[in-house]
Amino acid sequence: MTSIDLASEPLPADTIGLLEGLTTTRSIRRYTGDAVPDAALRAMLFAASRAPSGSNRQPFRFVVLTDGQVAREAKRIVAEGARRAWGHKRAADGYDQGSGARDDSPKARMARAMQTYVDDFEHAPVLVLPCLQRYRAPWSGEGASVYPACQNLLLAARALGYGGVLSMWHELVERELRALLQVPEEVVVSATITIGRPAGHHGPVRRRPLAELVYGERWGEAPDWAIDPPDTRHTSAGPPRATRS
Amino acid sequence: MTSIDLASEPLPADTIGLLEGLTTTRSIRRYTGDAVPDAALRAMLFAASRAPSGSNRQPFRFVVLTDGQVAREAKRIVAEGARRAWGHKRAADGYDQGSGARDDSPKARMARAMQTYVDDFEHAPVLVLPCLQRYRAPWSGEGASVYPACQNLLLAARALGYGGVLSMWHELVERELRALLQVPEEVVVSATITIGRPAGHHGPVRRRPLAELVYGERWGEAPDWAIDPPDTRHTSAGPPRATRS
Repeated sequence: MTSIDLASEPLPADTIGLLEGLTTTRSIRRYTGDAVPDAALRAMLFAASRAPSGSNRQPFRFVVLTDGQVAREAKRIVAEGARRAWGHKRAADGYDQGSGARDDSPKARMARAMQTYVDDFEHAPVLVLPCLQRYRAPWSGEGASVYPACQNLLLAARALGYGGVLSMWHELVERELRALLQVPEEVVVSATITIGRPAGHHGPVRRRPLAELVYGERWGEAPDWAIDPPDTRHTSAGPPRATRS
Repeated sequence: MTSIDLASEPLPADTIGLLEGLTTTRSIRRYTGDAVPDAALRAMLFAASRAPSGSNRQPFRFVVLTDGQVAREAKRIVAEGARRAWGHKRAADGYDQGSGARDDSPKARMARAMQTYVDDFEHAPVLVLPCLQRYRAPWSGEGASVYPACQNLLLAARALGYGGVLSMWHELVERELRALLQVPEEVVVSATITIGRPAGHHGPVRRRPLAELVYGERWGEAPDWAIDPPDTRHTSAGPPRATRS
């Protein structure tokens, strides 16, 4: 589809419900080799940019990298950062200690999945670097004008049969990356998102029991209605700790 | 519906598609007087907590305030903060200058909508304070573990026939609010979200042209496919500036 066609082409029709999408969109780290067509990228980025931002300033910008020369170089740079960062994290968080030494433990499986992801990073079909154009000094609430858009992007990928994952793998190589992409000084690179056709599947995600996350009139005390739907599966997750095994 | 019923009750069925929801969820600031039933709150908070977070640590916590004694007091406190903050902003950003002096200008309409919102703040059916349990020093990426959940909450409200808006109105009164709600020291109050049945309507939102927000191989240069779908309406938005009228 050429860009001329896209100008007269509406967004694709929905095949997944809104609440279903919200509750069953997983972080997708393994992709088939399929490229993501322009029409799908257009729809994803359109959805991302419909997210709210403070005073509707829209300070979010998205660098979308597919298969051009700069894209390949950017993927290589972030891949190296990801491998270094994951190497540090794997050791520091003790992913290979305790139950991590057993091949079939959740911890060992998580470590393998992450290792595969960073090893293969260059081959992710799409790398998106969501950025925030700062208009005031850094503050703890500034993410409210960029991360809702990132979530819209991941949900839109799901809506179109794709999937992705948000990470901070750019952090260790940010200087090199900014130079390559000519990111202006006042702009923050807010995340690393990869997108592609899932090699696995979306489906229900695991979280803590709702009553641990939702409080009512008093901090730490859940309201009566904070009850997971039937068949919800739980995890406390987070990285492994020295005190866990 | 009692909490016993909720334990065996699945989430409501979808009536809106995922991509449609992502592209047509507006910030809703005017609500009918209807209360939000427990089953709807449960579904919204369940969807919120399915959002991703760093290492799936789930550091997000949601204080959900409806009609209890503490809820009423919290709404009063944030309402006062909102009125003070909006008063400052209205003057500082020149909402009544230039075209703002004309009743029918977008600027004047925006100012009226915001004034009505803060004047009526106490009567919003639900006030949610999404919080972030910090596990490391503050940094620019920490919002990635709480604002995606906020966006899921707003989208889930939409899925169920409700609507809401995210703001930072708690900022000026954070100390008083934290004391009332006994928020622990290491926890950040990340946003103020109100939710209710819309007095108006959801529908397409206005943003800058996609080509201003999405770049490809070079900062500032849009890829060919960054084209809005037919009939998209635009706005540069942001608060008014002295140089605009």
